[in-house]
Amino acid sequence: MTTLPHQDQSTNDPLTNGNTSNGYGTDKLSRATEIELLLKAVLAQLVPFLHSADQELQAHQANDDVDETSLVDTKSPSELNYTLTDDGTLSLPKYGSSQLGLLHSLRSILSYSVNTSSPGFLDKLYSAPLAPGIAAELILSILNTNVHVYQVSPVLSLIETHVTKALASLFGFTGPRTGGINVQGGSASNTTSIVVARNTLYPETKIHGNNVNGLDLVLFTSEHGHYSISKAAQQCGFGSAAVISIPVDEVTGQIMPSRFEELVIEQKTRGKTPFYVNATAGTTVLGSFDPFTEISAIAKKHGLWMHIDGAWGGGFVFSDALRQRWLKGTDLADSIAINPHKMLGVPVTCSFLLLKDLRRAERACTLRAGYLFHDVEEEQDSENDETLEQRQVESNGQDSLQSTVDDDESDWNAPTDLADLTLQCGRRGDSLKLFLSWQYYGTLGYASKIENAYSIATYFADVVSKNHNFLLVSENPPPCLQVCFYYAPGQKLVYGVSKDATEGDKTKAGKKNSVVTSRITRSLVRKGFMVDFAPALGHEVEKGTFFRVVVNISTVRETVDRIVRDIEAVGKDVVRALGTARASA
Amino acid sequence: MTTLPHQDQSTNDPLTNGNTSNGYGTDKLSRATEIELLLKAVLAQLVPFLHSADQELQAHQANDDVDETSLVDTKSPSELNYTLTDDGTLSLPKYGSSQLGLLHSLRSILSYSVNTSSPGFLDKLYSAPLAPGIAAELILSILNTNVHVYQVSPVLSLIETHVTKALASLFGFTGPRTGGINVQGGSASNTTSIVVARNTLYPETKIHGNNVNGLDLVLFTSEHGHYSISKAAQQCGFGSAAVISIPVDEVTGQIMPSRFEELVIEQKTRGKTPFYVNATAGTTVLGSFDPFTEISAIAKKHGLWMHIDGAWGGGFVFSDALRQRWLKGTDLADSIAINPHKMLGVPVTCSFLLLKDLRRAERACTLRAGYLFHDVEEEQDSENDETLEQRQVESNGQDSLQSTVDDDESDWNAPTDLADLTLQCGRRGDSLKLFLSWQYYGTLGYASKIENAYSIATYFADVVSKNHNFLLVSENPPPCLQVCFYYAPGQKLVYGVSKDATEGDKTKAGKKNSVVTSRITRSLVRKGFMVDFAPALGHEVEKGTFFRVVVNISTVRETVDRIVRDIEAVGKDVVRALGTARASA
Repeated sequence: MTTLPHQDQSTNDPLTNGNTSNGYGTDKLSRATEIELLLKAVLAQLVPFLHSADQELQAHQANDDVDETSLVDTKSPSELNYTLTDDGTLSLPKYGSSQLGLLHSLRSILSYSVNTSSPGFLDKLYSAPLAPGIAAELILSILNTNVHVYQVSPVLSLIETHVTKALASLFGFTGPRTGGINVQGGSASNTTSIVVARNTLYPETKIHGNNVNGLDLVLFTSEHGHYSISKAAQQCGFGSAAVISIPVDEVTGQIMPSRFEELVIEQKTRGKTPFYVNATAGTTVLGSFDPFTEISAIAKKHGLWMHIDGAWGGGFVFSDALRQRWLKGTDLADSIAINPHKMLGVPVTCSFLLLKDLRRAERACTLRAGYLFHDVEEEQDSENDETLEQRQVESNGQDSLQSTVDDDESDWNAPTDLADLTLQCGRRGDSLKLFLSWQYYGTLGYASKIENAYSIATYFADVVSKNHNFLLVSENPPPCLQVCFYYAPGQKLVYGVSKDATEGDKTKAGKKNSVVTSRITRSLVRKGFMVDFAPALGHEVEKGTFFRVVVNISTVRETVDRIVRDIEAVGKDVVRALGTARASA
Repeated sequence: MTTLPHQDQSTNDPLTNGNTSNGYGTDKLSRATEIELLLKAVLAQLVPFLHSADQELQAHQANDDVDETSLVDTKSPSELNYTLTDDGTLSLPKYGSSQLGLLHSLRSILSYSVNTSSPGFLDKLYSAPLAPGIAAELILSILNTNVHVYQVSPVLSLIETHVTKALASLFGFTGPRTGGINVQGGSASNTTSIVVARNTLYPETKIHGNNVNGLDLVLFTSEHGHYSISKAAQQCGFGSAAVISIPVDEVTGQIMPSRFEELVIEQKTRGKTPFYVNATAGTTVLGSFDPFTEISAIAKKHGLWMHIDGAWGGGFVFSDALRQRWLKGTDLADSIAINPHKMLGVPVTCSFLLLKDLRRAERACTLRAGYLFHDVEEEQDSENDETLEQRQVESNGQDSLQSTVDDDESDWNAPTDLADLTLQCGRRGDSLKLFLSWQYYGTLGYASKIENAYSIATYFADVVSKNHNFLLVSENPPPCLQVCFYYAPGQKLVYGVSKDATEGDKTKAGKKNSVVTSRITRSLVRKGFMVDFAPALGHEVEKGTFFRVVVNISTVRETVDRIVRDIEAVGKDVVRALGTARASA
């Protein structure tokens, strides 16, 4: 147990937490000391937690055995609930337990949490947090800044404006009104893009709702797109049935532009009004990049807003080579989402919605509550509040996307009270995390990290494709940092299906494959690997779930070799056990 | 400039950031050390920042002069932009500047940020961050946990479930299915409550949109309610015109129940379908608490979902006395929002939506993407994914709120993959901040802090009401921690209006009062006070803006005495200057 200096314990009695009898006593005078001592004691537990991950990485690189993985001590929800209740971690007491209680809880929290810095954490589209992002979180917590109005968040507001403009420019958004907003996650970015699109094209919906004048709006996304688009459609009152799924190319997983246009025309014929298409830069499962230029041409032709969900693959924008290979045409979009908390080693959450014309976010989202947003010159007409909204509804009618961007040269000053550009009120200063990380590594440092990760993913796909125990689902080289494959000894699926099998047989066989994938996945955790799996896509659905392993910017090549060996070893046992179970059944 | 040990500089060359030529080299082995050294260097700047606020607090308590305030070095956006560009803080370089660059930027960030720990930061409904919440942020940043599925967030998922249930129970939600979800802020809490309400009462809207079967939904909130309700209505496709504003009592600022019912009936007569009412626990300006019991009776009678926006005043729930005084009837609501980042000293953001029946959040929000949500037993029918949604639409029709809560005793296991209860996918583990703070202070520790703050707010209102230079707008005692008042020498408004004044005269006079309030506010910053102001409400609107000063749980009584003195001193000058300007005009 970490011992705290006597001084600190005395000013922070566990029962009163330093409150003297008058209730606002001397404890407040030593807040800085209290915080410093607590943070140092917390850090004394956190550093060994990180160190254990470093040691495991070192073991990977040296090809040493790993006796005990740093990844996680797995427990089911009920087991863990029992453990944490039993050791007092979950108690919320009448009398505070102050520093000692917090440090006690922290021990349990670290013991049973997933260590995302562990080299075998290859499960999700985020991974080890890096030093500058962690430092930024500490700074944010002590500043405790709310980035809604400039008055209380001067520096962080400017930083948000600055970093979003720089990021937008990497994607080719270079006009005078380009920029972006920090939002609370990829789902929120995508949702906001839909609201901005709708309110830009049909501003009267902001006041009178989706169905004003009999409008029946529909939106489009890839069948491989993220589920947040459907969730947003439900939230925004369109309903999930308003989301039209665009088929993808079976090999590349990319939207088929011709099918997209057919669907737009079909919806129009049915009396619907298509208004939005979401293309993806790095789909969740395969990591595919849609053909942005072709999609944009169709979107423009039919008057749709084009959004790119680059929450994951948008990170490639830092590399010239990868940007040129996969991100061509992003400058043609109206909005782009990117989550630096995914590929860029920034702690969750850090997400941006970038806009070709930031003024549209203001028009779409503004609602200037008089108690929060104050005009700079109070002598001015105080009736300003609703002017923007009214002017927009009166004058715009349907805003042709092209004309606003290219032709409308009217002056516009970006607001400095940033909440007015968003759907939020209170806002965390998450931009600082990307900002300080970008400074720390530089554009080229990030480029090198990402290119290196891509080379490891390519190596991984290559190893898998050459190994007769696996069947690669991803392309080789893969488009992004995921490598998808089946464990398939002899390069056949474990429970293969003959050509004349019935649908029922196929379904059964696919389920067995899913069992194999899922059981291997679970067994791998004890060996220090956490990987994910996904259902087979499109016409392959009957084959069952396959592995989706995600390389990240901290991954080393030796980890790839190790996981391949471990899956082979575990897979053999799993298949044998299943075979025995079938024989004895 | 902080000097870093040689070892660290060598493994973190500013140009390569420690990447060796093979791109995934030795730097990764010392991540723990890199992070530890950086955090300690960052802390070495943050502690003096906090210390300066402590010293100012000490000066207040000792009645000493404050030579230089810790609050903020105010600059306009353009001035600050110039300064930060000039000193290199805003640069996003090609080559990373590593630790030294970060520490350089940090100096500027701290120099020009608002110090929310400063005793004079009385501007907003949040304030000084306290030790346990700051520690929690540091822990979260290093865990880098995404609380979407249990697999990757075992401990933080259980903690969220545990702390939301405990919080819900304080509000009187005690049934078997009560609980809550951590959301990204108060606006998001309120928005989510609207979506859950709509999808519970009209589940077919989830698939077919707001206007399914000709529905024309409207919702209700107080004219003093937070603007996020209108913003949510815009976002969710109802449009702001669907929000019906309920008049309040002129003295207390509370919703008038009879007017609420009249409006519901009126809307029904017009063919609209009322489905939701938002009552407030602690309004943004006056801090009023609506009469929940009466509102609930009307909501139940007419089949409306009742939500309580307790983002601010919900913090009173920790005090028996204040809960009994102001929060009677919260157990009758269907959902409650509370932001511990406001009253409870938890760093922004930490917000919860509590539900009487958490199953409704699942039904309303579930969309189980196969690549993220996996059934525990993979052998089970893989068609489970859509069952819940379909069952709900097929069987529910319109869900009578009473019957689901009281009569439907079917078993329900709360999901352990918490994202499925929310509108989000990736989610930060903000619950940990309240959880550790609650443990640190205990329920009674929080109660004592809040009761003490309330006694200081009461003292403040009392001082203002007895001082002939002020006109108190708040009730005395005030309902919550805000004290609203005019600077009004002789207890008359500076630019008073005679009874037979024209509307134009009134408007002009009100504007002058607004000028006085706003100018005093600006001048106070140099004296170490940041306070907010708000437009006069209802029939008083012509009087112009008044001060809204927010007491927080770190405020001391001496600060109240000081701000009163300072407003008097500054106010005199402001009024004199305005008089001179008028005379010379």
